[in-house]
Amino acid sequence: MVEKSAKSGKLKARLPRGLADRGPAEIAAARNLVEQIRTVFERYGFEALETPAIEYSDALGKFLPDQDRPNEGVFSFKDDDEQWLSLRYDLTAPLARYVAENYPNLVLPYRSYRYGYVFRNEKPGPGRFRQFMQFDADTVGSASMAADAEMCMLAADTMESLGIPRGSYVVKVNNRKVLDGVMEVANIPGEKHLIAMRAIDKLDRLGFDGVKMLLSKGRKDESGDFTKGADLSDEQITRVLNFTGWGENGSGSGSVTGSNEVAIANFEDAVRGSPTGEVGVAELETIKRLVQAAGYDDRIKIDPSVVRGLEYYTGPVYEVELTFEIKDDKGRPVRFGSVGGGGRYDGLVARFMGQPVPATGFSIGVSRLAAALAHLGRIRNGTTHGPVVVTVFDRERIADYQRMVQNLRNAGIRAELYLGNPKNIGNQLKYADRRNSPCVVIQGEDEKARGEVTIKDLKLGAKLAGDAQQRADYLKKQDAAQIAVKEAELVQAVRALLERHARD
Amino acid sequence: MVEKSAKSGKLKARLPRGLADRGPAEIAAARNLVEQIRTVFERYGFEALETPAIEYSDALGKFLPDQDRPNEGVFSFKDDDEQWLSLRYDLTAPLARYVAENYPNLVLPYRSYRYGYVFRNEKPGPGRFRQFMQFDADTVGSASMAADAEMCMLAADTMESLGIPRGSYVVKVNNRKVLDGVMEVANIPGEKHLIAMRAIDKLDRLGFDGVKMLLSKGRKDESGDFTKGADLSDEQITRVLNFTGWGENGSGSGSVTGSNEVAIANFEDAVRGSPTGEVGVAELETIKRLVQAAGYDDRIKIDPSVVRGLEYYTGPVYEVELTFEIKDDKGRPVRFGSVGGGGRYDGLVARFMGQPVPATGFSIGVSRLAAALAHLGRIRNGTTHGPVVVTVFDRERIADYQRMVQNLRNAGIRAELYLGNPKNIGNQLKYADRRNSPCVVIQGEDEKARGEVTIKDLKLGAKLAGDAQQRADYLKKQDAAQIAVKEAELVQAVRALLERHARD
Repeated sequence: MVEKSAKSGKLKARLPRGLADRGPAEIAAARNLVEQIRTVFERYGFEALETPAIEYSDALGKFLPDQDRPNEGVFSFKDDDEQWLSLRYDLTAPLARYVAENYPNLVLPYRSYRYGYVFRNEKPGPGRFRQFMQFDADTVGSASMAADAEMCMLAADTMESLGIPRGSYVVKVNNRKVLDGVMEVANIPGEKHLIAMRAIDKLDRLGFDGVKMLLSKGRKDESGDFTKGADLSDEQITRVLNFTGWGENGSGSGSVTGSNEVAIANFEDAVRGSPTGEVGVAELETIKRLVQAAGYDDRIKIDPSVVRGLEYYTGPVYEVELTFEIKDDKGRPVRFGSVGGGGRYDGLVARFMGQPVPATGFSIGVSRLAAALAHLGRIRNGTTHGPVVVTVFDRERIADYQRMVQNLRNAGIRAELYLGNPKNIGNQLKYADRRNSPCVVIQGEDEKARGEVTIKDLKLGAKLAGDAQQRADYLKKQDAAQIAVKEAELVQAVRALLERHARD
Repeated sequence: MVEKSAKSGKLKARLPRGLADRGPAEIAAARNLVEQIRTVFERYGFEALETPAIEYSDALGKFLPDQDRPNEGVFSFKDDDEQWLSLRYDLTAPLARYVAENYPNLVLPYRSYRYGYVFRNEKPGPGRFRQFMQFDADTVGSASMAADAEMCMLAADTMESLGIPRGSYVVKVNNRKVLDGVMEVANIPGEKHLIAMRAIDKLDRLGFDGVKMLLSKGRKDESGDFTKGADLSDEQITRVLNFTGWGENGSGSGSVTGSNEVAIANFEDAVRGSPTGEVGVAELETIKRLVQAAGYDDRIKIDPSVVRGLEYYTGPVYEVELTFEIKDDKGRPVRFGSVGGGGRYDGLVARFMGQPVPATGFSIGVSRLAAALAHLGRIRNGTTHGPVVVTVFDRERIADYQRMVQNLRNAGIRAELYLGNPKNIGNQLKYADRRNSPCVVIQGEDEKARGEVTIKDLKLGAKLAGDAQQRADYLKKQDAAQIAVKEAELVQAVRALLERHARD
């Protein structure tokens, strides 16, 4: 259905919901962010890999938290040969496909990093996009808890390299086996574990009461959509929610202030009698020991509230949370929250192979992290000024002006020829102003006759204009902001002006 | 349809046709390339913009050369609300949508650059992918030929900044209005112009005889598919092909050695009597003058063989061609060929607006350009060595080894803990070798007792092993490649080793 304006028959220019255009500042911020993350990941020995945005749907599998939605959270379409293709919804499932396809040639354990856009066919909302960038690190072929501990340290080092001070972030660690153990002890049947975990994962978003409904009969959201619940008994619900450390009024993050020893002792109590749960606690104990030896135990915390929504996790799960406060929609202070996370997924590569291939990985939400850094005032700005604009005074002499522009560019100076309709110089100055130009270059008949060009300093001009008292004074001041130089000295003079501005 | 191996019930790990994974070297090369291009484009005053990979299908329109294929060359799927979405097939159509949507807020003329992946649902072939990267520059809101001349100079400067020497590339310029004029003079009806132009655009790929068939009754390709022809008369075909400068035996590129003056004089003759054609020649004359004044006439050449396949061009069209020779499939020398191109598209934004918005732009094929640079030996390599590997001698002491790794990383040294099964040190050394590690760190019981670590220099070891005559000699030499240092001096010693290697 082509959407056209009824009156004009014109096409309507619009973006589909949940997608966004990005301008220079946002692009520069994301680029710097990606470069920083890359530097840390490479220091850890991780190696770059890039997979395409499109994969066979069956290779990606269906592991999204919202797979129960009709379109299953993924953008899909049929290829010429009737096979289903999908846009990747994360960078982990494609890695599993890559590893299986290239297994004999890989040096194992294989540490890989990848970044790029992923796509979710979900209901968009504030800050919730259908295309967003992830930056992942994964270690494939190691069952060692040292691989998981390393992921947590990598997450911590990445935060610090971005200028997020220690104390303003925490890496929380839990274990799916422990969660399974708690549910086993509470006599919750296996097939309900995943539903219950997905409910717990929403504590942050829906709060204690919302999740309680999801663990019980079900919950109707603001739009009126009803989600069926896990149908647990009141006692089961109490046991599960008690374990997460969330109270009816609390935010559940109290636990991270306790020591890792205390957390593990609590975990041991909670899973007693469940072999799965006990293995999970032992895994966390190893991670605790490694993290402590490397001096990271003030930043990496065992925490029962971490679950992660994806289906494929099998052991340790972790989450990076920024702990400083921002205001929510209603102006109340809330923690900034999660900017990334991951976990161990020992079954994902095995889907393709005859043998189990252990793996663990971690994903950063680049856009969300960029928002956090902007909040902290840590975003570095790319360009500090716009281009020098060479104006067109006499349209017959445009080739001369073009040559001046090229001379400036060849000297490494950002410069433009005015390409609009050159009917008057005022329009061109206005354009230069809006482009944040440091100066404009003008050559009319008089200057040409003298072999000169005029350079008008727009920054100085603006400053002097602010100081000017009266019109006569203003015009005098504007004169002070411009100089005439020999045409052959144009590049040199503009460079001197830019250096003066840089020192201001 | 899930493709499973019949025997095992396992999923098959495979990529859809025409898509590719990329490894570290290729990724680093593309990143350097993109950074270089970005630097030149910013120097020209172009400003970054990023649009999403998904757009409404109607907003993109159907301008691809192969739109006659059943799937129309585009990957499409329906949104929840039954509207059709498509993956972008270039970066120009989304820019037109962006400009129309944000028109009141733009500073015009608007110089924008964008890069990212585009998707074509086409038959893949050697070097022909269904996902590839483009890097575009566009100027919107200027009807001035200076904007087109600037694009050509931008293309030339970009090639030189990448280390492609002058003389190894040429920017060829033609004009769609001239081509229309030539066809008008040959009495070819308007509705056949586009079909004829698309045929001419294939001279490079199909050769003189293949294109002749497309201009006549039609052509059957190797796969047996038949493409209907433009059904021109023999005389019309001769006129059109003569104009392009291609002969039955020639490659058609002879014209670029002639001067721009001669080319324009020929064009004037070819369009005489066609008002459209005469406007086109006047436009080229202006571009010629601007290019000459700026000193680019040795690299920017008026050339009748350039057409470009996309439907939306309305005036000047240009193409960047690398002129050095490579071998084709059959070992014959051929020119490397086109790495980018573009043209003026005055109608594309107008689709959304009540008013005409002139625009011109230029697109670089990043992957193709990377291949060219690799051929010229101009690809800079990212990392020169792999990470330092700290081995696991005693698995009970993994926390100690982990701490050493973190100390190295904190000092900015790329380092890894061995995360595989640490059953023997031989496997770990083999791993380090395959990772191209400069050295490994070992701490067994003896070293631990002395508070020391052993650093084994793998590069020196390999060199000495090459020199060794006999086994005894070999073992002695291997000893020479390792040193013992106090544990506290590990970082310092590894750094000294890396500096020695860097000097080698």
